Order: sequence, then C-alpha cells, then structure tokens
Amino acid sequence: MSLNDVRELDRRDPLRLKRADFALPPGTIYLDGNSLGALPANVATRLVEVAQTQWGGDLITSWNKHNWIDMPVQIGEKIAPLIGAAPGQVVVCDTISVNLFKLLTFALALQPGRTTILSQADNFPTDLYIAQGLEQTLTSSRCKLVSVAESDLTDGLTDEVAVLLLTHVNFRSGAFHDMQKLTDLAHRKGVLVLWDLAHSAGAMPIHLDACHVDFAVGCGYKYLNGGPGAPAFVYVATRHQNAAVQPLTGWMGHADPFAFDSAYLPAPGILKFLCGTPSVLAMCALDEALNVFNAVDLQQVRKKSEALGDLCRTLFATRVDLAEFQLVSPIEAHNRASQIAYTHPHAYQICQALITENTITDFRAPDILRIGFTPLYTRYEDVWMFVEQITRIVSTRVYLDPKYSIRAKVT
Amino acid sequence: MSLNDVRELDRRDPLRLKRADFALPPGTIYLDGNSLGALPANVATRLVEVAQTQWGGDLITSWNKHNWIDMPVQIGEKIAPLIGAAPGQVVVCDTISVNLFKLLTFALALQPGRTTILSQADNFPTDLYIAQGLEQTLTSSRCKLVSVAESDLTDGLTDEVAVLLLTHVNFRSGAFHDMQKLTDLAHRKGVLVLWDLAHSAGAMPIHLDACHVDFAVGCGYKYLNGGPGAPAFVYVATRHQNAAVQPLTGWMGHADPFAFDSAYLPAPGILKFLCGTPSVLAMCALDEALNVFNAVDLQQVRKKSEALGDLCRTLFATRVDLAEFQLVSPIEAHNRASQIAYTHPHAYQICQALITENTITDFRAPDILRIGFTPLYTRYEDVWMFVEQITRIVSTRVYLDPKYSIRAKVT
Repeated sequence: MSLNDVRELDRRDPLRLKRADFALPPGTIYLDGNSLGALPANVATRLVEVAQTQWGGDLITSWNKHNWIDMPVQIGEKIAPLIGAAPGQVVVCDTISVNLFKLLTFALALQPGRTTILSQADNFPTDLYIAQGLEQTLTSSRCKLVSVAESDLTDGLTDEVAVLLLTHVNFRSGAFHDMQKLTDLAHRKGVLVLWDLAHSAGAMPIHLDACHVDFAVGCGYKYLNGGPGAPAFVYVATRHQNAAVQPLTGWMGHADPFAFDSAYLPAPGILKFLCGTPSVLAMCALDEALNVFNAVDLQQVRKKSEALGDLCRTLFATRVDLAEFQLVSPIEAHNRASQIAYTHPHAYQICQALITENTITDFRAPDILRIGFTPLYTRYEDVWMFVEQITRIVSTRVYLDPKYSIRAKVT
Repeated sequence: MSLNDVRELDRRDPLRLKRADFALPPGTIYLDGNSLGALPANVATRLVEVAQTQWGGDLITSWNKHNWIDMPVQIGEKIAPLIGAAPGQVVVCDTISVNLFKLLTFALALQPGRTTILSQADNFPTDLYIAQGLEQTLTSSRCKLVSVAESDLTDGLTDEVAVLLLTHVNFRSGAFHDMQKLTDLAHRKGVLVLWDLAHSAGAMPIHLDACHVDFAVGCGYKYLNGGPGAPAFVYVATRHQNAAVQPLTGWMGHADPFAFDSAYLPAPGILKFLCGTPSVLAMCALDEALNVFNAVDLQQVRKKSEALGDLCRTLFATRVDLAEFQLVSPIEAHNRASQIAYTHPHAYQICQALITENTITDFRAPDILRIGFTPLYTRYEDVWMFVEQITRIVSTRVYLDPKYSIRAKVT
C-alpha cells in the first residue's frame, strides 16, 4: 500500500465531494470528529443571518415569523431518518445528561414493581452519573443502578430491571452493540431499552423503529456537526409517549404554553419532552449542519468508515515503531464504529505532540489514543499522513519533551 | 408635556450613549425587551469569530485554547455584580426550568422534616410547573407544592415549608417583592428562599448577598440581552454549596470530568450545579452581550426605568381614547419593575395592530398588554411615539380588522 494507492481510494470515494461542505483549516489533519464535528461551511453565514435579520431585525416576532417555536420538532424530524425513526418521535432539546434524566424517570414510571436501571460498567460516565443522581433523588426503594460488565448484561436482565441503559458505541474502544439482539432480549424479559447514540448517530445506519427500541438520546455535536455543546435529541417510540409524565415539566412541554395556566398539562406526543426555552442560536447551527446530510447514503458512510479504520489498523500493523500500541478496538471492521483506539504508555504526550504538528486525535484517560473517522470529510490520505506523522513522533521520541506532559484541563 | 419636552429628557439621559451598543432596526419602536432583549451590536461579529476561528479553525483544542471549559463560571462572574453576588456563587447553564428543578431538589435535601414548596399562585407558570413535576417525581410524602395568593404568603410560612419559591417581579403586572423583607421573614420561620430573577436581573440593582438569599435563578435573554433562549444562571450562597447534591448529576458537574470515573463525585462549590455540555455558541453570545453592562450604573438604569414607566402612565392617563385601558401595574414607580401592563378587552388585536406598524409590545393571556422598558436602549421619545400610535389605533378602531384576531402560535 503506497501513498498513490491511498490517493486512488480518495479519487474513487463516492463521498469525496462532501468534504467541500465543511470549512476545514488548511494543513490540519482532523481525526476527532467523534468528539467535536468540524464546522459545516454554511453555519457561520446562517448564524449571522439569524442574529442580524431574525433576532436583531424582527426581534420577539421571530418566534412566529421565523418559526423558532417549531425548531425542536423540525430539527428532530431532520434527524429522524438518520436514526430510523418515523415522524413524531424525535425532538431536539437540552443535553444528553438532562434528557437521560427525563427518560430514565419516565421509563421507571412505565414499569411499576421494577426499580432497577441496568447498565454497563464502562458506559460513558455521564450516563452512569445521571442514573446515580436519579437513584439518590428517588431513593433506593424506587430506583437502583446496577452496572455490570458487558458479558454479564444478559444475566443481569432480571425481573427487577425496569430499563436497560446502554450506549450504542463504546466511547473508548469504538466497539458497538447489536441493537436488535439486545433490544429483543430485554423485551423478552419485560425490560425497556434506552440507547445512547452519542457515538453512532450520523456515523452509521441506525434502525430504532425496526429494532422496536423504546427510548434513545443522542448528541448534536459529534457526527452531526452541530457545534460545540449543540443541543441533544430525544427519541421516544410513539407507543410510550402518552403513558407517563417526564419529571422536568417546564413550560415548553406544556400543552398550551402561551395560555399561562398555573397547572401543568403535558403536551401530547413527543413535545412533552421539552422543558425550558431552547437556545435559538444553538438550534439554528445544528439545523444548518444537518443540511450536509441531504442525499447522503448512510450505507456509503458506513462502508467508508470501515475502510478508513481498516486502513489505519493495517498501516499501524506494518510499522515496527508502532509496535508498542495495543489495539483496544475490535479487529474486525464490522464490530467497530467510526473510531479506532490504541493504548500506549505515553498516549497523552503523543497526542499533545501530534496537536503541535496540526494533527488532532484525542486522549482518554488513562492511556488511550482515540482516532476518529468522519467519512464526510476524512480522507484516506489523512489517515496515511497521520500514520506517517505518529511514526516519526514515536521513532524520534520527540514526545518525551516535558512540554508534552503538561496536563491540559480538557483532554 | 410635549414631544419637545420628551426629547429634552433623552438629551439629558446619562445612559443615552448606550443605545449605540445595540443593533436596533431603524423605524421600529421596541418595547418588549422584558421578553427578548435586543441584539447587542457586537454579538454577530463575536459569533462569526467563535464559529470560524475557534470551532472551525482550532476545532476540539478550543476547549483549552479558547477556554470554553471555564465559560460557565466566567460568565457567571460577569453576572454576579449585577445581582449583588460575591465571587464563586453564580454559574451559567441550562434553562431556568432545569435550574429550578436542581435548586428545589437541593433545597428540600437541606431541610429534613420539611416537605413543602411554598409559592405564589400567579408565579410564572414554569416555576409552578417544575415544582409540580418535582412533587410527582418525589411523591407527596417528600414534596408538596402549596401555591397561595400573595397576601397569604406570610401565613403560608409554616414549619412544614422547606423553601419559598418566588419570582422577584410579577411577569404580568411588573409588581415586585421586597426581597429583603420576605427573605428575612422566611428565614425567621426556618424557610430557605429561592428567587427567580427573570424579570429583574439587569433591570434594577439586586442585592442577593446583602439580603442573605439562599438560591436564585435568572434569565439570559431578557434584560441581559443574551439572545433568544440564552443560557440561564444559577446563584447558590456559598454557605449552602457543599451541603447537599443536586439531582442532575451530569459530567460537567463532576469534580474531575476528564478522569472519566464511573462514580459521580460532585465538584466543589458552584461547579456542581453544572450538568451536561453547554452550547458554546449560546454562551459566547451571552458573554458578549454582558459587555454592554461595562461601567453601567444600575441605579441610573433603575431611575430611568421608573421615569419611562411614569411617562407612559402619565401619557395614557391624558388620552381620552385610552380610557378603556385598566392599569394592572402598581401606580407608584417604586413598586413597579421595568414594565407596565394594562388590560383591554381587545389587547390581543391592539398588540397585533401595533406590530404591523413596527411597534412591538406584547400580549399576555387573557387580556393584558405589556409594555417593557429597557433603559439601555429605550428612549423617552419611543414611549411618546408608542402612545401616539396606540391612541390612533384605538381611536380609529383599526384593530377590529379581522386579520388582527388571527391567533399566533406564540404570544
């Protein structure tokens, strides 16, 4: 495999023109779209238009005139086809953390007599933290978090379990669950399932309806490219929507917010999962970013994602200098989402040295280097250049410079 | 009082130069800053810079490089002097609704043996809704909302009350509470106090520390001009911060989020009130908007606010055509915040007719016309012109045109 071969892969890539939809900094190799998606080229213009024309020019009347009020639902409906959801089941609001609190409480209310939230011990921390906060809020008589190893999930599905809380893609390894199989298994045990799609939405085809998933949450700022801290989304299967009340009963989830009634009456359907007033600027950035997905075939995205990961893994395997890197991701592409991870005793320093040379991957404590692939803008050549660069950094031991050991606040 | 007199008031206004800090649409009279603050002139440029240079150019490294991670606290510290808070007690995050849920739950945890949330029946709906949602979530054995008329608040402070939940300024009438007096009264009964500053922060001096307030929430998008749906803020007095855990235990409130531990450990101090990842775009807009308050004397703001309200009330009183308007705000300026409200049987239609003529006030069901004054950009002449215009609309009965009865989704 030569650089020319790799360039030929880019020339034949059916998604190659999508890269122009992003404003990527020249000279930077960006392999961290799994943490923060790159800036779509039209977003800054949209922000200026919303700020100047809508907020500045039309002021409060924009809630009607520019339909700000319907954005949570309209943007939800843009996300719906990316996650296999029929209309009326997805809404954009708040953060994953806040939305997990809503949905876990809601799920417990649907399962009288069952009080356990079953999750995986290496789930993304905020998922576990929110469940812990809920346990403390509801007291252990009404909510108990049980976190087990992945291999013990099946045995953990007892008749005390109300809801199975899983993240589709492991944030460290990139391994992903068989959504259909685990959802079916849980349902056979009377357990509802809540999937966190943070590292899968926008990166691979997802079939929530076809898998009969009950609930999901997902992230606007990773593969959906909605900007740092973009609003999150909520999916609630139609069959559950009117069966209970979610706990964060803010006015935007009221059946008639502008009646200013003193009694809360939940809106019908998915709207009841809204809480407070959403940031219109944040919403518009995500809305604009989602236009990048117009006419994108997620099967093609997935195919390229697998190929980028395989290329990275193959190149790593051929470099003697990289022998100290231990693969923590599944070796087979079909078991791996759109990232690949290695451990290395100096992963942090190597990551910092790469950043200094304008190649951005990320580090996850204690010793993991994560390499993310966003098929809409990552080129095969980027992967080649990254491997060249990390090989040089490792072989020259430049990463041992003390400046690379200074711990940043955010890693 | 003539138009010339009014223009003289503008010429002598010590805040007159502040209007240039806003990008107001020419020809529009905007009297709804109590619902959505106008666009500060520098915000659009800041948004483009953050989107293009930070997000687009520096990508994920911006969390460190541009200090995104510290924005909730840094912006909180910008708000602190506006509400009389010493450092370390204010943080910007989520929405008022979500923050009320955090603080009410936290307050209940501080008051073992007391389970009642006492509030006012005509409080802003989301405050009551959130308390109702919490009551349902915790069950009535642990939380009970009691809403009473304003005149019954004192009697309502029984030894079952854990927390008094009040909005500083009534969203309809603009009447405001004596914060010092009610806080003292509550404390003498062993009751904690949570103030919602939605309609007062940025419009008048507030002295949270001096009044020994326990908790407060406030809005970023009204008098702070942070943009539609801007992030809200939380105030927790230092003495309470480490005494309990708030329920929305997301990763941004963890003592060490980037350690990715599986057990939640609350951050010390005010940081524990954070939950999920904040929208950087929304945060930056609010941050930029707050620069407008540099060197602003809130006593001057308050004085002008009273004068604008008095001018409006005086002009209304002199117009025979406006006789059908009934004042629902306190007649004395010192009892009124920065808005004035009237009932009229056709308030909705009149509000719509005004909008058609580029004068923006707002309507609150069932029959209230609200007129908001933002002393940083509202001119005395604006009030004069508005009264001229509404007098003409009422005297010609143009508002009876059926098109003005079409009910908008957002009012």
